[in-house]
Amino acid sequence: MKIDHVALVVADLESTLALYTQTLGFTPVYREIILDQGVEAVGLQAGESIVELLRPLDPDSPIARFRGDADGRMHHVAYRVDDLAATLSRLQAAGIRLIDETPRKGAHGNRIAFLHPKSTGGVLIELCQPGGA
Amino acid sequence: MKIDHVALVVADLESTLALYTQTLGFTPVYREIILDQGVEAVGLQAGESIVELLRPLDPDSPIARFRGDADGRMHHVAYRVDDLAATLSRLQAAGIRLIDETPRKGAHGNRIAFLHPKSTGGVLIELCQPGGA
Repeated sequence: MKIDHVALVVADLESTLALYTQTLGFTPVYREIILDQGVEAVGLQAGESIVELLRPLDPDSPIARFRGDADGRMHHVAYRVDDLAATLSRLQAAGIRLIDETPRKGAHGNRIAFLHPKSTGGVLIELCQPGGA
Repeated sequence: MKIDHVALVVADLESTLALYTQTLGFTPVYREIILDQGVEAVGLQAGESIVELLRPLDPDSPIARFRGDADGRMHHVAYRVDDLAATLSRLQAAGIRLIDETPRKGAHGNRIAFLHPKSTGGVLIELCQPGGA
């Protein structure tokens, strides 16, 4: 499995984006509102992966509360799989609790599903199949 | 900049490692004690990057306290650079606060340095130059 993206929830999207592009040298590759996840997302190219900065649309949402008082916090790691539906079935059969039992639409045209951190050692994992319709 | 590794601090290294290898399908590529950082680290291959599971050696250390009550927590993202010393100089000149002003020894023969999260939008960033002597 490859890292599709690492997602960070940030308090100030514009200043963090300026830091990553102007100071750290990253190149933005997409910027979009993902209504389904309640965030605005900016994707920055990092080799074969993406660093994704997330701004919660609703300051009272779970992802906004997850950040707490920090300026930013790592939110999840997404791994790329070839066949998301098959992978979800296999993981569920292996006893992994799924947040999404079937793939749904993610950023950038991806099909995605989240695994429950209670069964992944405490860290939120997203699985991601690129370029689904 | 490419993602060298994503590091997760975990409460139970053996069970998390079993989950990542047996259930999620990752392959371990190194396991070592990094005394300098006070952790045991297991690296799992993820494409051009590594997912690194960290077990704090001292349960009262800052990295252990960082995990808190969670089973696991994302700790830092490390980006690979060609010339770490030059990158640190450039970032310091750009106003970034450094935890390590000069490169030190990391896992797996790397030269590493941490940037201070206060000047990187709240998320701990490591820079990493592979294979330095």
